[in-house]
Amino acid sequence: MAKELTSRAADYSQWYNDLVIKSGLADHSAVRGCMVIKPYGFALWENMRDQLDRMFKETGHVNAYFPLFVPKSLFEAEEKNAEGFAKECAVVTHYRLKNDPDNKGKLIVDPEAKLEEELVIRPTSEAIIWNTYKNWIQSYRDLPILVNQWANVVRWEMRTRLFLRTAEFLWQEGHTAHATKEEAVEETIKMLHVYADFVEQYMAVPVIKGVKTANERFAGAEDTYCIEALMQDGKALQAGTSHFLGQNFAKAFDVKFSDKSNQLDYVWATSWGVSTRLIGALIMAHSDDEGLMLPPRIAPIQVVIVPVYKGEDSKAVIDEKANSIISKLKALGVRVKYDNSDNSRPGWKFAEYELKGVPVRIAMGLRDIENNVVELARRDTKEKSSVSLDGIDIYVHQLLEIIQQNMFNKAKTFQQANITKADTWDEFVQILDEKAGFVSAHWDGTPETEEKIKEQTKATIRCIPLDNQPEMGVCVLTGKPSTQRVLFARAY
Amino acid sequence: MAKELTSRAADYSQWYNDLVIKSGLADHSAVRGCMVIKPYGFALWENMRDQLDRMFKETGHVNAYFPLFVPKSLFEAEEKNAEGFAKECAVVTHYRLKNDPDNKGKLIVDPEAKLEEELVIRPTSEAIIWNTYKNWIQSYRDLPILVNQWANVVRWEMRTRLFLRTAEFLWQEGHTAHATKEEAVEETIKMLHVYADFVEQYMAVPVIKGVKTANERFAGAEDTYCIEALMQDGKALQAGTSHFLGQNFAKAFDVKFSDKSNQLDYVWATSWGVSTRLIGALIMAHSDDEGLMLPPRIAPIQVVIVPVYKGEDSKAVIDEKANSIISKLKALGVRVKYDNSDNSRPGWKFAEYELKGVPVRIAMGLRDIENNVVELARRDTKEKSSVSLDGIDIYVHQLLEIIQQNMFNKAKTFQQANITKADTWDEFVQILDEKAGFVSAHWDGTPETEEKIKEQTKATIRCIPLDNQPEMGVCVLTGKPSTQRVLFARAY
Repeated sequence: MAKELTSRAADYSQWYNDLVIKSGLADHSAVRGCMVIKPYGFALWENMRDQLDRMFKETGHVNAYFPLFVPKSLFEAEEKNAEGFAKECAVVTHYRLKNDPDNKGKLIVDPEAKLEEELVIRPTSEAIIWNTYKNWIQSYRDLPILVNQWANVVRWEMRTRLFLRTAEFLWQEGHTAHATKEEAVEETIKMLHVYADFVEQYMAVPVIKGVKTANERFAGAEDTYCIEALMQDGKALQAGTSHFLGQNFAKAFDVKFSDKSNQLDYVWATSWGVSTRLIGALIMAHSDDEGLMLPPRIAPIQVVIVPVYKGEDSKAVIDEKANSIISKLKALGVRVKYDNSDNSRPGWKFAEYELKGVPVRIAMGLRDIENNVVELARRDTKEKSSVSLDGIDIYVHQLLEIIQQNMFNKAKTFQQANITKADTWDEFVQILDEKAGFVSAHWDGTPETEEKIKEQTKATIRCIPLDNQPEMGVCVLTGKPSTQRVLFARAY
Repeated sequence: MAKELTSRAADYSQWYNDLVIKSGLADHSAVRGCMVIKPYGFALWENMRDQLDRMFKETGHVNAYFPLFVPKSLFEAEEKNAEGFAKECAVVTHYRLKNDPDNKGKLIVDPEAKLEEELVIRPTSEAIIWNTYKNWIQSYRDLPILVNQWANVVRWEMRTRLFLRTAEFLWQEGHTAHATKEEAVEETIKMLHVYADFVEQYMAVPVIKGVKTANERFAGAEDTYCIEALMQDGKALQAGTSHFLGQNFAKAFDVKFSDKSNQLDYVWATSWGVSTRLIGALIMAHSDDEGLMLPPRIAPIQVVIVPVYKGEDSKAVIDEKANSIISKLKALGVRVKYDNSDNSRPGWKFAEYELKGVPVRIAMGLRDIENNVVELARRDTKEKSSVSLDGIDIYVHQLLEIIQQNMFNKAKTFQQANITKADTWDEFVQILDEKAGFVSAHWDGTPETEEKIKEQTKATIRCIPLDNQPEMGVCVLTGKPSTQRVLFARAY
């Protein structure tokens, strides 16, 4: 095989890193903690972004663009938000370089070009956006504002991993403004459902919808809703968040509106975001030791056709047949690639497209064509079958949806099998150490207990599920009474 | 009228600024020189971006994403490029803020979080990209690389104007790598034609394709090709550039490849870009004292329907009729908006959509419906006509193409009427001062003369047109012999 991966069993973390790089999704860059998203990875992101963008527009949102920079005085206006992000802010202090007088051909920062006020590179844009909304909102007629932005943000993380945690990442951030609390809460939850629908239906990754505890809330939010996904190693991954911000930012930036009876009140806010981190979730939810496994609905290449031939004559025959199939598949909207390059042998190509996670591979030889069949391999089940050329386009088109469903079902079964109830501290610890996954346990509701559990086990409360049923019990750590179970896990 | 604009005759520059802000395209922000692109402006940019992206993909390019930051040592590697941009670089020097011990609730830059090496925010990405290509390219089999990136870049300009010159702007930058000089030159010119086709066919702005003189070349390029547009005030605007970079960046970053005969050589490069500046060109090429005039192919709203009614009964009748027209228009792919809001009167709405440059306005009253007609107004010619409801969808769909063509033709006529030959210095100066536009004149081919002309008249050589005919003559300034005319203009 062309590019060996570390196996998951040998070293899960190394497997992940190998996979991202060798499959051509992304690479490290010369800038600490920043990645290069390579064309294959970016094509995947484009498919995800475009679908999310459609879903945002269908729910009434429009896109806009706000500055990369946040003046320090604006950044610090909402204190909790500022405190939450201050430790990971990249800061621009100068606006010019000049020739180094001591070192020909080199440049130094020009000390005379120091900014009067430092500029923070946005780690999130509430501050700059609410400072702008102040000018957009006077009356209830200006509300709601339903704006989304696709942008790069920077959070200076000390330990970075490709896609999962990078100093710069790409994301979208919705920032909405409302006349009432009820409407803002409704928006927060609506977008949580949009995220869940996207991740489940397009990425084939099942999620648990819930609300965060106070400890895990977004800095500056009144409530943070989240979708939590489960990775194959039993760790959880927060895949998206939707925040009800109350009137915190409106108060920090003095954004008031006059209602129908001409009373002034502060505006209610939400924000919500998903990022290139989703690609990390996608990889770890589905892939195996042979490579990526991409769900058809977002795969850059859904079907690859590889000719198997000796000599130019047979190649010409196969090319012709392949091209007729490709035309039909494209007419059905299937993203198909024909790889008849002479640079490598079919076996090498098979391994390469397995590594790249292409859902369906079709191999075509002369004898196949004579028999009016092709050899078709599914990436998800690794099944190979001989399929008739008659109606192959319809067959493949339907198969892609079957693969999509199968991938979701498999991940859903795994998720369900890895939500385990613990009723004692010993059980709790044992499950975390031996089985992992989500642990459903009673908790006394205090931040102190939550913190102690985190210190002792590295497990955090991932969420209080939205569909939770009330249940009387006692906290696994303190034995104090509890009215519901919450979900703990170790997490990315 | 709701929002009065300064007229072009009174103050062209103020007219432009008023128009951008009052039409809802963009606004100033709290960050010096940075703009907020508002939803209407961003919808316009999305239409432009999506069409360009299609054209890039049709010509074999793929998208990727590279870091926002360029370490100073990489930035300075290609000396001419570094020198060209050093004076306008925003520089990140620190990665953390901390609480101000002297000022509760305020933050200061943490002096202990100083970066070992400063990071330049990309003013353009050749350096970071070629440093990456070094890892991607070993053999001729890895070539060509045809990559594009949609990104934000920062150039610390001292005098900024919305869209035309902002400290941060959005753009795309193509960066391609080739095995031969011929192939790289071919790519450079191919992308120039793609730009010209886009600007002419979608933005309805005619351009002149040409090559820049050495003085006006991109820093680090061997040749810069450009498209030059003409604004209504007679000033030129560089709408896009495509650079043949030779082996300059390959040498600076040591990017070599082995050819088919196993010889090592440096890789050949191109880069090409257009930015949100195009929106400035669009505005100034077409708009008038009543507002924007957007070409149908990229207008966010192509058709607006405004009901004219008294009372809820008649509103219901009109709503029903309007909705049936809207369904038909949408089926034809027309972007249509129905504005039946009660917040403002029809006259106010008419003015508002004129300001926003919507190509076609349809007004519908009860009596119109009884007569089986609507009142249709064209934004480009301001003609109003009564149009039968039978086949109104087909009519409007065709009219949009007619408007697109008419806008281009009008701009083309203006451009042609404003390319004026000058054969003496007096003529040259007189045309610039009294007529403006492009001045076609002989030039002795030296940078010194070009510089003198710029100093004396503020006119620069916009380009040497690609379709130039050889013609013997003498330089308008020095009287020295010249073999061809070049195009001068004052420019944005």
